Amino acid sequence: MCRWLAYSGSPILLEDVLFHTEHSLIDQSLSAEQSVTTTNGDGFGVGWYDKRDVPGVYRDIRPAWNDKNLQAMAAQIESRMFLAHVRATTGSPVQRTNCHPFSHGKWLFVHNGLVNDFGKVRRDMAFAIAPELFPHIWGSTDTELMFLLALTFGMEGDVEAGVARMAGFIEHLAEENGVDDVLQMTLGIADGESLYAVRYSTAGESRTLFHSASRDATEEIAPEAGHFSRNARAIVSEPLSDLEEEWVPVPEATFVTITKGDVSYQPFAPIAP
Amino acid sequence: MCRWLAYSGSPILLEDVLFHTEHSLIDQSLSAEQSVTTTNGDGFGVGWYDKRDVPGVYRDIRPAWNDKNLQAMAAQIESRMFLAHVRATTGSPVQRTNCHPFSHGKWLFVHNGLVNDFGKVRRDMAFAIAPELFPHIWGSTDTELMFLLALTFGMEGDVEAGVARMAGFIEHLAEENGVDDVLQMTLGIADGESLYAVRYSTAGESRTLFHSASRDATEEIAPEAGHFSRNARAIVSEPLSDLEEEWVPVPEATFVTITKGDVSYQPFAPIAP
Amino acid sequence: MCRWLAYSGSPILLEDVLFHTEHSLIDQSLSAEQSVTTTNGDGFGVGWYDKRDVPGVYRDIRPAWNDKNLQAMAAQIESRMFLAHVRATTGSPVQRTNCHPFSHGKWLFVHNGLVNDFGKVRRDMAFAIAPELFPHIWGSTDTELMFLLALTFGMEGDVEAGVARMAGFIEHLAEENGVDDVLQMTLGIADGESLYAVRYSTAGESRTLFHSASRDATEEIAPEAGHFSRNARAIVSEPLSDLEEEWVPVPEATFVTITKGDVSYQPFAPIAP
Amino acid sequence: MCRWLAYSGSPILLEDVLFHTEHSLIDQSLSAEQSVTTTNGDGFGVGWYDKRDVPGVYRDIRPAWNDKNLQAMAAQIESRMFLAHVRATTGSPVQRTNCHPFSHGKWLFVHNGLVNDFGKVRRDMAFAIAPELFPHIWGSTDTELMFLLALTFGMEGDVEAGVARMAGFIEHLAEENGVDDVLQMTLGIADGESLYAVRYSTAGESRTLFHSASRDATEEIAPEAGHFSRNARAIVSEPLSDLEEEWVPVPEATFVTITKGDVSYQPFAPIAP
Repeated sequence: MCRWLAYSGSPILLEDVLFHTEHSLIDQSLSAEQSVTTTNGDGFGVGWYDKRDVPGVYRDIRPAWNDKNLQAMAAQIESRMFLAHVRATTGSPVQRTNCHPFSHGKWLFVHNGLVNDFGKVRRDMAFAIAPELFPHIWGSTDTELMFLLALTFGMEGDVEAGVARMAGFIEHLAEENGVDDVLQMTLGIADGESLYAVRYSTAGESRTLFHSASRDATEEIAPEAGHFSRNARAIVSEPLSDLEEEWVPVPEATFVTITKGDVSYQPFAPIAP
Repeated sequence: MCRWLAYSGSPILLEDVLFHTEHSLIDQSLSAEQSVTTTNGDGFGVGWYDKRDVPGVYRDIRPAWNDKNLQAMAAQIESRMFLAHVRATTGSPVQRTNCHPFSHGKWLFVHNGLVNDFGKVRRDMAFAIAPELFPHIWGSTDTELMFLLALTFGMEGDVEAGVARMAGFIEHLAEENGVDDVLQMTLGIADGESLYAVRYSTAGESRTLFHSASRDATEEIAPEAGHFSRNARAIVSEPLSDLEEEWVPVPEATFVTITKGDVSYQPFAPIAP
Repeated sequence: MCRWLAYSGSPILLEDVLFHTEHSLIDQSLSAEQSVTTTNGDGFGVGWYDKRDVPGVYRDIRPAWNDKNLQAMAAQIESRMFLAHVRATTGSPVQRTNCHPFSHGKWLFVHNGLVNDFGKVRRDMAFAIAPELFPHIWGSTDTELMFLLALTFGMEGDVEAGVARMAGFIEHLAEENGVDDVLQMTLGIADGESLYAVRYSTAGESRTLFHSASRDATEEIAPEAGHFSRNARAIVSEPLSDLEEEWVPVPEATFVTITKGDVSYQPFAPIAP
Repeated sequence: MCRWLAYSGSPILLEDVLFHTEHSLIDQSLSAEQSVTTTNGDGFGVGWYDKRDVPGVYRDIRPAWNDKNLQAMAAQIESRMFLAHVRATTGSPVQRTNCHPFSHGKWLFVHNGLVNDFGKVRRDMAFAIAPELFPHIWGSTDTELMFLLALTFGMEGDVEAGVARMAGFIEHLAEENGVDDVLQMTLGIADGESLYAVRYSTAGESRTLFHSASRDATEEIAPEAGHFSRNARAIVSEPLSDLEEEWVPVPEATFVTITKGDVSYQPFAPIAP
């Protein structure tokens, strides 16, 4: 399964979170429940904010643990906000343009889950994307189209509403095309100022999602870093084994906003077209 | 610039044509006219027919000359019909799914040229692809959409008509969207029985294309092979330096069919929608 | 952990064994015992014999399941003898030249295991390789050096003796450099005529190794193939779950030869220098 | 042919030098003298210094122009000192561990040139590397061995002497093994404080090398950057077309040191063993 992680707070080295921990994003993927399908050999990506208007994005089909370039880069780059993702493909080719995070302008977007029976709704999803955004389709994933649809539906002005309309539109297509339980979704979104997360699935049984409530819990994602700011927060797909009581599970059908350490919830429901 | 080559005749080792010649496809690309844009570092592909119903396809972003896997494979595989292509991207990402040849069932498809101002017509091209073929879009090139459009417009029953309708449709979109000289095109197509080629451009100044008229000329593509059958024929983007008089330039606006060594021409004109 | 498989018999499609089975080499790797280290995302390789004097070799850092080129190739190529290997690195970089099988002339060589504390003996191993073979070091693995040492010590004339001298030499270096339990080894070797396997470790607790005793058992590696010849035999790292009683465990310290379906054992012991 | 570039001065974005110029390192490679051998599709690398003790290094077999990860990274990273290199292989495999720059601790090392008849001296070169450095051989290039030999011969204490002994040792091996004109060499070396360059060849006809003498000339490598410090200096394989009079050719057999903008020369001669 995919796993993702988001961080917001004072700048820390990417490597402190990606590599130098006992319970890193990567380890979670390796020791997560395995089946006879591929689980984690399908790509890795990280998007980070620094001095520029737009984030940097590094995505590759190599797993993070055997990518020396990523390790070198993560050892040098400090960032106040980043999203990282390990991928397990649900069918589309393994290529960089199908790895998360997806980006557009200041936005970053990661997803754990899938659009069920994607083949039945893919064409309609693609054509609902604003024509000026259509050229920004570089890959062939459900996630890339979800992202561009959310932008089409106004995410830039109101993140929650844009995502809700995207979810509502996809559920509408599902009805029209006889697809059950179409959306399985935890999303991570960033714009350089705030982190946003969504936990929602059509069938109401979403993959897990947690956020840290305090600095102490946030330090758990990178014990060796040791210099987390008071307002540092993280969002993770799986809880870490330690300090479980300080990792707050995000309820089903919830939209989370984290700005400068302040965490707020809204109920999340798709907005039908 | 892209370069491609097609072969039909008794089986020969792929390596005889791809690597073991002085004037190989690869060499042509390297010593072709260079500019400050990339010309040949953007990928290579070969599709070949053997005992199965469908061809094998090998495509990678590595140039052919530094891909040991391709060299090993080409040293082992004999084939009676194959298409090979070196790519120079005109904008889309460098990934395997954007390399030629494209394939679907028994079909192989390569292209030298481009759809001018592709961004303005891409969405409409994608929309016009038959819904059941839409899931077969894995990349983001003009060529992949041209191929799926030709299939949509009946290429399986009549190759020339399917391609002509595809060309006509794209020129129609160009008019509607203010795009000049939209098509620049030499195409190579195979179905396991015959080779087909098209040389056509909206502005009437297509890239070069040649076919061999005799075994002697065909041997020129692989001098060391030395065992070409009487009906062996090749189609190449550029003539070889030797025996130039035996390489027949394909005229502008022409559709070529090669079946068991017999070469026939038809005038080619787009069929407007 | 690494896994490998060898086949000898009438030609079958590579894909029948590599992909079209329930209990394929790849599945074994995925559902094998997992730890927090990488186990199977570090590369895949296959070497196969066909009409040429030397085998073809395909090795890549992508896992087999997400490599379309390998899948296409395996769907086209039939072979009477081949070795396949999935890699889990024990430290050296993940690059094609560090994937198995290694090859030289007609020889193929795969390994499951390691040279313990390789850093302490690597230099001496490298310098014991015959000077004319030294230029054939392309990577940085223990296995590549083991192979070139076996060739140096006469594998071409007597496979068992060459391997035994290589093992004895490495154990000698281990003594000199204070390395315990230096060799952990199951080896698969082929020369186009026969398959050879070795199961030996300094500490006497080697990884598992099995060979099939009959056609019925051999069919287990590729149930859908259904056309195994009477003399078809396979060697595998792990037994398949079905027909376990027909998979013969290779005893510790044993050298196996399979020629045209005949299986013979020799006791194996390192020959000290 | 290979090309390299070094920069020292106040921090600038890597992309200003690598991508956003008319006469970039990459363009030079593309429009340099071409032959029918590969010239520039064999890899790219950049090593840069920032806040850490050691530089970051990014190397890949993809050409720089089609590597989105490199482009993203170069758009975010500012550095006061870096070396960049485009590779054309002289025989060894195309893999990341064979791309420049090579690194060890605080050191970076790039090379344009070759060790002639490398196969005849490779083993002896490898043997002469200090045993504790031998495990740091990850690839199979002449350059990597030259670097580790220079370290073996004292480069850490005296760069010029270490390199001179390395060159002298290789020329000695050449004599013993009947190799003419063994060294063809322009080297770029950095330690985070200074840049060093060497221009020397056994036959006295080295590839070109230039350094900038002023800020104005240095700006030529990145006209759009526009904020070069007074002490900014660059070293390049080829002069830029503009302001040629401000690019100082490094004479044959010369060792250059650039520290905080001060440029000094020493005559360079190999020190025989």
